This record gives sequence, C-alpha cells and structure tokens, in this order.
Amino acid sequence: MSVARRLRIAGAQMGPTQRADPRAHTLGRMIALLERAAGAGAKLVVFPELAFTTFFPRWLIEDPADLLACFETAMPNPGVQPLFDRARALGVGFCAGYAELTPAGQRFNAAILVAPDGAVLGRYRKVHLPGTIAPRSGARFQQLEKRYFAYGDQGFPAFRAPAALGGAITGMLICNDRRWPEAWRVLGLQGVELVCIGYNSAAYDPNGGQSEDAALRVFHSQLVVQANAYMNATWAIAVAKAGIEDGSGLIGGSCIVDPHGRIVAEAATLEDEVILADCDLDQCRQGKTKMFDFAAHRRPSQYGPITERAGVIEPQGPD
Amino acid sequence: MSVARRLRIAGAQMGPTQRADPRAHTLGRMIALLERAAGAGAKLVVFPELAFTTFFPRWLIEDPADLLACFETAMPNPGVQPLFDRARALGVGFCAGYAELTPAGQRFNAAILVAPDGAVLGRYRKVHLPGTIAPRSGARFQQLEKRYFAYGDQGFPAFRAPAALGGAITGMLICNDRRWPEAWRVLGLQGVELVCIGYNSAAYDPNGGQSEDAALRVFHSQLVVQANAYMNATWAIAVAKAGIEDGSGLIGGSCIVDPHGRIVAEAATLEDEVILADCDLDQCRQGKTKMFDFAAHRRPSQYGPITERAGVIEPQGPD
Repeated sequence: MSVARRLRIAGAQMGPTQRADPRAHTLGRMIALLERAAGAGAKLVVFPELAFTTFFPRWLIEDPADLLACFETAMPNPGVQPLFDRARALGVGFCAGYAELTPAGQRFNAAILVAPDGAVLGRYRKVHLPGTIAPRSGARFQQLEKRYFAYGDQGFPAFRAPAALGGAITGMLICNDRRWPEAWRVLGLQGVELVCIGYNSAAYDPNGGQSEDAALRVFHSQLVVQANAYMNATWAIAVAKAGIEDGSGLIGGSCIVDPHGRIVAEAATLEDEVILADCDLDQCRQGKTKMFDFAAHRRPSQYGPITERAGVIEPQGPD
Repeated sequence: MSVARRLRIAGAQMGPTQRADPRAHTLGRMIALLERAAGAGAKLVVFPELAFTTFFPRWLIEDPADLLACFETAMPNPGVQPLFDRARALGVGFCAGYAELTPAGQRFNAAILVAPDGAVLGRYRKVHLPGTIAPRSGARFQQLEKRYFAYGDQGFPAFRAPAALGGAITGMLICNDRRWPEAWRVLGLQGVELVCIGYNSAAYDPNGGQSEDAALRVFHSQLVVQANAYMNATWAIAVAKAGIEDGSGLIGGSCIVDPHGRIVAEAATLEDEVILADCDLDQCRQGKTKMFDFAAHRRPSQYGPITERAGVIEPQGPD
C-alpha cells in the first residue's frame, strides 16, 4: 500500500498559562486549538513545552507537594485524558510537552508523540537543560530546570509514524535543545523527516545580560530551527508558549520550516494561535541524497572532540 | 600588555577568474583588494577558496601537468610572493584558499592564515569535499573535488592570532565545510572567536536538481554561517568567488556575521569587492559564558552517533 507523503501539520501556539490557572481551563484551551487545527485539515498538532502548566522553573518552589503538582505521574492520566480522547475522536495525532515523574521518582522535562489512533508512538526527555540548580539571588525570575529535572538519558530517538501521518520519521526536541546542533544531527542520523519542538523562551536575556530583546530572541529561535532543518534536510515545527506568563515575558515566533530552511508558516500573535502548513515529506529527499548524503560526505574521524569532551580547550598562543 | 580586542576585518570577494587568466593578473587583483582593505583600516583580509585559480574541479583534467599547474608546491612560493610581500608591507594579515601539493605528492584543498608580520599562523585542509571521484556523464560542469583532493586529515585546528589581530582565536573553513555543524563545533570547542571561510558555490543546483536557484543558494550559504556563528558564539566571515567563471555561475553573498548570527556587512555585487566590519572579539563572551557555556550545558554522552558512524540508520516502523 502506498503511503500519502503529503501531510498537513499544525502548530498550536499557546498564550500564557498563569500559575493559578486550573488544569481544566488549560486543557480546554488545548482542546479548542486541537479542534481548530483538525477543522483545518491538520493530521498532526504540535503543542509547546510544558503545555499543561505555567513554565514553573521560573519559580523556586520549596514545598515538595507544590512542585509535584506540576508533574504527570503517567501519560495519559485523568488530568489530560480529555485531550487524548478528543484527538482520537478527531483522528489527529499530537505532540505535547509535559513534566514527567517516573514511578522511581525521577523527574524529566519530556514530550510525547501520539498517533491519530491514540497509540503513544514515543517519548523524549530533554537533554539540554538550561539554567541553574541553585536559585540566583536577586533575580526576579529564576531558571531552575537543572534543579527540577534530570538530564534526558535516552539520547534523541526518532520514531516512524504510521501511514496516517505519512510514515514520517519523527523526532522531538524541547526548547533549548533546538540551539544545539548535536541534538539535530543525532536525529538526522536516523533520517528524520519532521522535528517537533515546543518551547518557553524568555522575551529578555534569561541569563541576566542586557543585550537581548524579544526581537533578537525570536531571530535566534527561528535562525537555529531554519539552519538545522536545512542541514539535516528535514521539516521542522517550533511552537511557543508566548506572552506575559506570571509577569514574565515569553517570545512567540512559532514557525513551520521546510527542508531548505525556509519559514512557510509563522505565528502573528502572542496568544493561542494555530499555524498550518502542507508538508511534503518527500521534499526531504533531495537534501538527504545529495548535499547532505551523510554516508558519502560526513567525516566522523575528524569530529572526535564533539564526543570526547563537553567544554572548551583553547589553543596556545603564537608567542 | 593589554590587547585591543576590536579589529577591523575585510572580506575580499573576488569576481570570476577564468581558466585562461595568467597568475600575475589574478595576483594583481588580489593585491588591489588587499590595498583597498588596508586603506580602509582592515587588519585582516579574507580571500576565497582556491583564490589563485579558477574553480578547476569543474573540469575533468586528464593531463597530469595541467592539473599540477593548479597547485602550490609550497606556501609562499614565487607565484604568490608579491601578495605576501605587500601584506607584510601594509601590516595586514590575510587568509586565502589554495590547492596544496605536498612534497609526498598528496593534494589538498587548503587555506592559510598569515599574520601581519608575514608569519604563517596556520593551515587548514578541507574536510568536507563535495562532488564525485568519477565524472558525471552528460554534465556540462563537473564537481570533482573528491577526485583531485584528499580529505583533510588534521581536523579543524584553531590558532591564536598575535596581538596585532586582537589575539583572536581563529579558525578556517572551506566552502562546503560551512554547511556541516560538526566542523563549526570542533572550532567552538577550541573557543573560536573568528571563523574565516572562503567559497566557490554554484549559482544553480550542483547536484543536478532543478529546485535551487542562485537566490536560494545565497540564502542557504548565509543561513548556515549565521546559525553556526550564533551556536558557537563567534564572529564569522564568509567570502565568495562570484560571477560567471568559465561559463559557470557562482553565487556571491559574501558576509560578515556577529556572534548573535546577524549579518553586519554584505557584498552587493558579483565582482571584486571589499566588505568591512569592526569586530569586537569580546562580544563572543556573553554567548560563550551563558547560553553556550559548553562545559555547563553540553551532554556528550548523548551524542554518540555523531562520531560512531557516517550515515543514516532509520528507525523501525510501528507496525
């Protein structure tokens, strides 16, 4: 049976989710976005990182019960089941970020990929955790991902989606991962055709500098998605949680990018918004078989430092 | 002694060099570009890949003497000495691509970095050779780099330039290398602050496809330089040989890119043209110590496939 390789995908950008918002309210927004996307013919809908909650790593949460309330102990679970049910009824797949608490008590910043028939195709645990373990004194907003989450421990798996999703070889990245070409390349080495990304990115320099504003941070976000999509000959969709969340600004700039690195759809607001594109997965083919024919052109013997060490070793001077 | 870290650099884009052009003519053009850049205050001038010749890999050259005439058996040598002499007299450093023939008879697509005092700071041999070994039958223009050159065998070395060049940690990439994030990352892992790139890139799809025109290929070229400069928090300068060379079109689009990935200078022509920018090397510092603090944020244990294999292994299906 031949598989239709042309697939309409949707990004479900979300406006802010305040810490006080009830889960049912947030889930209702997500279902409304899902329905809007499905009504427009989308077969796959991508939601942001930590889609079910506010971006809670901005807060130092000292009460363990308050922290655990942000996490999902299973996926699906009763608090998200209506989204899974509605997606299955509509026959659309989806990808969504969530905070994962394992039975062993490990916490991950995770994402899940669900097929149109409700089957869980795969899960990804964020590898590139930004921020710090200890809160920064005097900072109005923290970035405590390194405190609340363990580093993803299963690499960057790609999953072959079913025929209803064009058989797309699909990967997931979460927020900061998109700035790391290693993450994209490990997906590229699995022949990835669609990379689904959710993010919560501050609209100011989250590291305390004064040199980055919202426009520059949207530029950075789109630049890395565009270039890494091109260099791996894949479609990519990057979806924001945007707007003023708990008093802290988040960029929008959600976009869908083709295997040439061109933006083909882009969000115009900082609110709940659906973006759509028809993605011909076979457009990945030229890049994968010519310019980026990895087997023909990559030279792993020259890449040793990439896996041998994490940090910088500067060269000696000429004097 | 404190080192001035602000450095004016120049890209010396070259218009086409025909196969029949005498070496002295080409060298005269390069010296004129060097003088123009030095007159504008540049301390470092970057020339294209294979700057002294036409892009000869477009031809199947069957006579060994004709092929060897394209190569330099030493650097400098009498055929390029006037450029070295003029640069030293003007007190400017430069980087230039050339075809290297070693005493042992190995051939490389190489680049050299020369200090303002004439000292050779370093040499790079291109790792990512595009094209084919065997000529493609029926093609009007070949891409025979894999036939004429050995793969670079010394990785991606970075060199610490002298105080006259701001002490910049400097790397070189050649043409197709710029599309491979591994090359940039190995430089980034050496703390690179300035990446000098020369290229000869076809203004049409060199792999025989019909989907790429000159505008798209300039977009690709700039996109990868911008994103990889950002992801490695480095200045970058990418310099074309441009225009109709031996009947074959080459893109221009030479540009200088800051550590945020922004183009700060760009060529407007397909001719001999100097582009200039004042590069504050200390602007690399924010990226290197915050967002792209590699020691704090990279996770080499998850990057295994990048050095374990060259090519793609696709995942199994869900059925």
